[in-house]
Amino acid sequence: MSLSVAIVGASGYTGAELLRLLLAHPSARIARVFARRSAGERVDEVFPQLRGALSMAIEAFDADAAAEADVVFTALPHGESARAVLDLAERGARVIDLSADFRLRDPATYARWYGGEEGEGHPAPALLERAVYGVPERYRGALSEAQIVAGPGCYPTAAILAAAPLLSRGLIEPDLVVDAKSGASGAGRSPSRATHLPEAGEGVRAYKVASGHRHTPEIVQELGRAAGGDAKVLFTPHLLPMSRGLLACAYARPAGEAARNPAAIREAIEEAYADERFVTALPPGACPDTAHVRGSNRAHVSAHYDEGSGRVLAMCALDNLVKGASGQAIQCMNLMVGLEETAGLAAPGVFP
Amino acid sequence: MSLSVAIVGASGYTGAELLRLLLAHPSARIARVFARRSAGERVDEVFPQLRGALSMAIEAFDADAAAEADVVFTALPHGESARAVLDLAERGARVIDLSADFRLRDPATYARWYGGEEGEGHPAPALLERAVYGVPERYRGALSEAQIVAGPGCYPTAAILAAAPLLSRGLIEPDLVVDAKSGASGAGRSPSRATHLPEAGEGVRAYKVASGHRHTPEIVQELGRAAGGDAKVLFTPHLLPMSRGLLACAYARPAGEAARNPAAIREAIEEAYADERFVTALPPGACPDTAHVRGSNRAHVSAHYDEGSGRVLAMCALDNLVKGASGQAIQCMNLMVGLEETAGLAAPGVFP
Amino acid sequence: MSLSVAIVGASGYTGAELLRLLLAHPSARIARVFARRSAGERVDEVFPQLRGALSMAIEAFDADAAAEADVVFTALPHGESARAVLDLAERGARVIDLSADFRLRDPATYARWYGGEEGEGHPAPALLERAVYGVPERYRGALSEAQIVAGPGCYPTAAILAAAPLLSRGLIEPDLVVDAKSGASGAGRSPSRATHLPEAGEGVRAYKVASGHRHTPEIVQELGRAAGGDAKVLFTPHLLPMSRGLLACAYARPAGEAARNPAAIREAIEEAYADERFVTALPPGACPDTAHVRGSNRAHVSAHYDEGSGRVLAMCALDNLVKGASGQAIQCMNLMVGLEETAGLAAPGVFP
Amino acid sequence: MSLSVAIVGASGYTGAELLRLLLAHPSARIARVFARRSAGERVDEVFPQLRGALSMAIEAFDADAAAEADVVFTALPHGESARAVLDLAERGARVIDLSADFRLRDPATYARWYGGEEGEGHPAPALLERAVYGVPERYRGALSEAQIVAGPGCYPTAAILAAAPLLSRGLIEPDLVVDAKSGASGAGRSPSRATHLPEAGEGVRAYKVASGHRHTPEIVQELGRAAGGDAKVLFTPHLLPMSRGLLACAYARPAGEAARNPAAIREAIEEAYADERFVTALPPGACPDTAHVRGSNRAHVSAHYDEGSGRVLAMCALDNLVKGASGQAIQCMNLMVGLEETAGLAAPGVFP
Repeated sequence: MSLSVAIVGASGYTGAELLRLLLAHPSARIARVFARRSAGERVDEVFPQLRGALSMAIEAFDADAAAEADVVFTALPHGESARAVLDLAERGARVIDLSADFRLRDPATYARWYGGEEGEGHPAPALLERAVYGVPERYRGALSEAQIVAGPGCYPTAAILAAAPLLSRGLIEPDLVVDAKSGASGAGRSPSRATHLPEAGEGVRAYKVASGHRHTPEIVQELGRAAGGDAKVLFTPHLLPMSRGLLACAYARPAGEAARNPAAIREAIEEAYADERFVTALPPGACPDTAHVRGSNRAHVSAHYDEGSGRVLAMCALDNLVKGASGQAIQCMNLMVGLEETAGLAAPGVFP
Repeated sequence: MSLSVAIVGASGYTGAELLRLLLAHPSARIARVFARRSAGERVDEVFPQLRGALSMAIEAFDADAAAEADVVFTALPHGESARAVLDLAERGARVIDLSADFRLRDPATYARWYGGEEGEGHPAPALLERAVYGVPERYRGALSEAQIVAGPGCYPTAAILAAAPLLSRGLIEPDLVVDAKSGASGAGRSPSRATHLPEAGEGVRAYKVASGHRHTPEIVQELGRAAGGDAKVLFTPHLLPMSRGLLACAYARPAGEAARNPAAIREAIEEAYADERFVTALPPGACPDTAHVRGSNRAHVSAHYDEGSGRVLAMCALDNLVKGASGQAIQCMNLMVGLEETAGLAAPGVFP
Repeated sequence: MSLSVAIVGASGYTGAELLRLLLAHPSARIARVFARRSAGERVDEVFPQLRGALSMAIEAFDADAAAEADVVFTALPHGESARAVLDLAERGARVIDLSADFRLRDPATYARWYGGEEGEGHPAPALLERAVYGVPERYRGALSEAQIVAGPGCYPTAAILAAAPLLSRGLIEPDLVVDAKSGASGAGRSPSRATHLPEAGEGVRAYKVASGHRHTPEIVQELGRAAGGDAKVLFTPHLLPMSRGLLACAYARPAGEAARNPAAIREAIEEAYADERFVTALPPGACPDTAHVRGSNRAHVSAHYDEGSGRVLAMCALDNLVKGASGQAIQCMNLMVGLEETAGLAAPGVFP
Repeated sequence: MSLSVAIVGASGYTGAELLRLLLAHPSARIARVFARRSAGERVDEVFPQLRGALSMAIEAFDADAAAEADVVFTALPHGESARAVLDLAERGARVIDLSADFRLRDPATYARWYGGEEGEGHPAPALLERAVYGVPERYRGALSEAQIVAGPGCYPTAAILAAAPLLSRGLIEPDLVVDAKSGASGAGRSPSRATHLPEAGEGVRAYKVASGHRHTPEIVQELGRAAGGDAKVLFTPHLLPMSRGLLACAYARPAGEAARNPAAIREAIEEAYADERFVTALPPGACPDTAHVRGSNRAHVSAHYDEGSGRVLAMCALDNLVKGASGQAIQCMNLMVGLEETAGLAAPGVFP
């Protein structure tokens, strides 16, 4: 089987990571590559790591041309991405969108967080309810029949993988602190003082705290869905002096059976991921390390009960550009088109 | 005024940092330097950054010789340090101990955390109650009359500076999550796989979670004292890919006046540090960055109320080897001997 | 085609990297894994990045068992590795050795550099002349018929790829300065002060300068072979604050045609690598960046003539664990057994 | 003695480093601070490391006001800096310029390297011959009487400290390769892709090679002056994944006495720096490490003869923002005004 793939928005890191992973995919063929800024350049001029591997030209976006591919990935700025997805969906394309445009199910929430000062509405609200949130470990069934997939944010993916199995089993209260740490590639390819090596290269800082980060409503939504109700979340992102990697720590009080038997916490995590190919529950005592999943689609998860404080800590480490973005998107693609879920994604992390 | 200073345990990072800071101190004079492992070597052979600045020989510990100094700093492994302090105190020396031996006021707690499998008791319990916990912003008065000072741990210092002003004013509940991130120098100078550059240099991981880290009881003790009762703390330390710097995030629910008026949180932090020379409450919207305090005795603090979750986040960034260890110890020394508190410590951070 | 592979010495970084790359190889199957230190453990206990990908047990070395594989990789300490290769060769195995034992063709040179104080001789001198030096871009023909391959050092590989095409065409004098910079993974997995994150994580230093590094005679040998005579080389290695990546700068005076027409330098590099799949000559003006080849078997090369000084600079960037070790070894394996040279190695670098 | 100091161009890294060092200076007082971009802001808003230490307002440049200070530091972009120096010199001010404007003694060379496409001339050629090149270890006498000091480039300072003593004694040929490695703070505070943490944080690359970097003519000039004639230099700068630190390796053939007795190399370096307070010749076998001089005005130097190649390697490590810029400028100030040369600069490096 040869699956033709188009990428719209290939000049950012998630676009480049799609290219890297698709080049190693046994069934996918990169058919067309589109980008606004870099149209006319070759992909290996824009991304020198592709020299010798891929030299096709980047084109200006053309919905008709893109829609000819079996699957289209869109990775444009929010708003713009939704409009491209609309164009593609009208032409019958199956689309996996890596922007934030289809992650929030409630258009009012979208308008509040992404609508700017004016609270402008969603560009394609009718598509919102057809979009499936792209975490296969949560929505595998729906993804296999989806036409439009909302590629999740990197922080939400880690928070979900750590906490959702505990919430869905009623083992923690739906009132969490999520303290997360990310490498700088999560900030994208545009240079800024916040990612200027002399300033960011040897220190750590939180940013956009206290509901200042747009991944907050996404985490709230998905942890609420897992809990079967509303969830409260205080989310604190941090920028670390490294390129890739994301570690999320979720803190909550035990509930249900776990309030009586804290061992239920660990058992639940182990059970939840026993059959998963990309998520591993670590053995007792071990803590996830982002260095161990770098470059791979894998996530390492652990859960701990702290007797001293009576609280639960669940953690997840992943590569923000792979399981937190492009790798997970390809995992979704595999499901959508009926391929083996692990196709092209089995490689272990690049360690050390 | 010329103050003679002896250092016992000069071959570790805190010892070296004492040397660096004392060399810049206007009144202190490094009289004698002792260490076990490195006795016979010159300090600038053990620490090449001292080449051209200090070349005195390191001696094997001699309590009589050390006690002749006006102030003695001890920085030995726990247990060993207490015995040295005992020897020195008997000789009338004023001692600032940078080990963990005098931090915990309850001997039973000490035995549980530091006594090994056997729960061995404290080597000098009679001195415990005379020791003053060395955070000047909390215990300035007692420190100015102390004979023995317990130099606090780096994580506890940051947790205290972030949370104690809120607890002492009854503005948060004494039930906290402290999620803290540290550079690798906190692990000391002995190489290990955990600090081996290829494995630790480009990733992040938590360690000794769920009451596994010995700074836990120290944080519990001091936050409890601030709250005027017992405190519960879940403490999670992380190892980051950098040498220096520590950021602590403390999470709790608002209480008292803050439950009605969240603005009280910020006001309390600003008030608490308005007259402090080393601790700065950042302006609204700003978050502390360890890069901004590197190499200095300063700490940057901020506090935030998150409406979405109804929780408080207070943060503190400091340099784990300076305000988190040797700088704060010298700040205590200044108080003990009646010098200006900022003597030798006024330099800003080395940034970028 | 299914090729069974055994690895002897799997608890170091080159062993782990062989596992990572072979897992992605379309024709190879990891049959047996041996190591001394870690025998009895599972590979994913020794290397957590393999969790979920490979869980086989590590065995104590058994020559008979290993020799049953179609190809055996040995990655043991020098001396020990030669003895294992001897055992395997006697049993008819095809062996790719990643130690230094078969790199130097002259047993006297080997004894001088690896024989210790006594200048002890090579453990298997008879095999030395049968071993083929494993840089496919230089010795492709011989490698396709080799029974024993000497996996080259990481520094020599980069120096050869940069300078050999110029030397073999007589375009530079065989009298070079090679100034090379490496990430810390080149130092292996054993922790030391030199690779202790607090000391090595934010600085740069040369080490083993002035013929102090064992890669010196290997570079001298191979650049001499390229030049068709003797070469003189001053080699300076550096340790950088990063995990992977190696950049070698080779400096020499132009010779032959290049002395009259410096453009011949660039043309020669372009011609030399025009048909190579793993080595790319960069376009004019571009300089190699190790970040662009991280995790991949690719090397980026450039050559420059400096009019001001009348000298040539040729550079090569590669990943020291892939093209500088395990990836190149698999490239050799592909040649030895008649597979496509790029099998399992086509993935681009993991960037950013 | 209280020395009033003004800084013109305080919003860049060298300006900030001047502030940090002057705050610790026993005799200097920061009187006025000027900058174009940041005029109207407070220095601790522009540089958060100064919070709690310095809060004065930044003013728009006013030559009259600046010239009232005892010493003025200028750190503006080239061209602009020369014009400010001209204004200040006319008002009788003593000026230390940290731009490139007064480093090159030959106006034609300046025009070629800094004059843009048009080769525009120097804005203040008459001042050029009065300016003294600010490396005290070379020009101490002239500096003590200088009105205008040209603060040297960071790369040239390191190259000079490594090679000049050998050239001035005729012990190496004036035909060198200088391979130098720098932290990213040398690139200034403006973000760019080259210093974007995800791209630059975990790799190494050379840049502006083959006489592409503007420090080339400065190195050529100063090594020529040391040699008492012309020098040829191939200079290769590299960008490393760290904030501060610069290591220069200078390669050359031995000459004069050293051609017969290579030990003369080491002896010359030791002799040259025996009485210097900021430059240390390392003991035999040791190599300089930028981590050991970070944050300090010190430089570590070593020299080695390589028998295998018959070449000399001399190395120097320094902090590019201190001995490579602002610290050395203050060292010059101390000389100009008759203070102790080490005033305010004695602190050892911040290590680890």
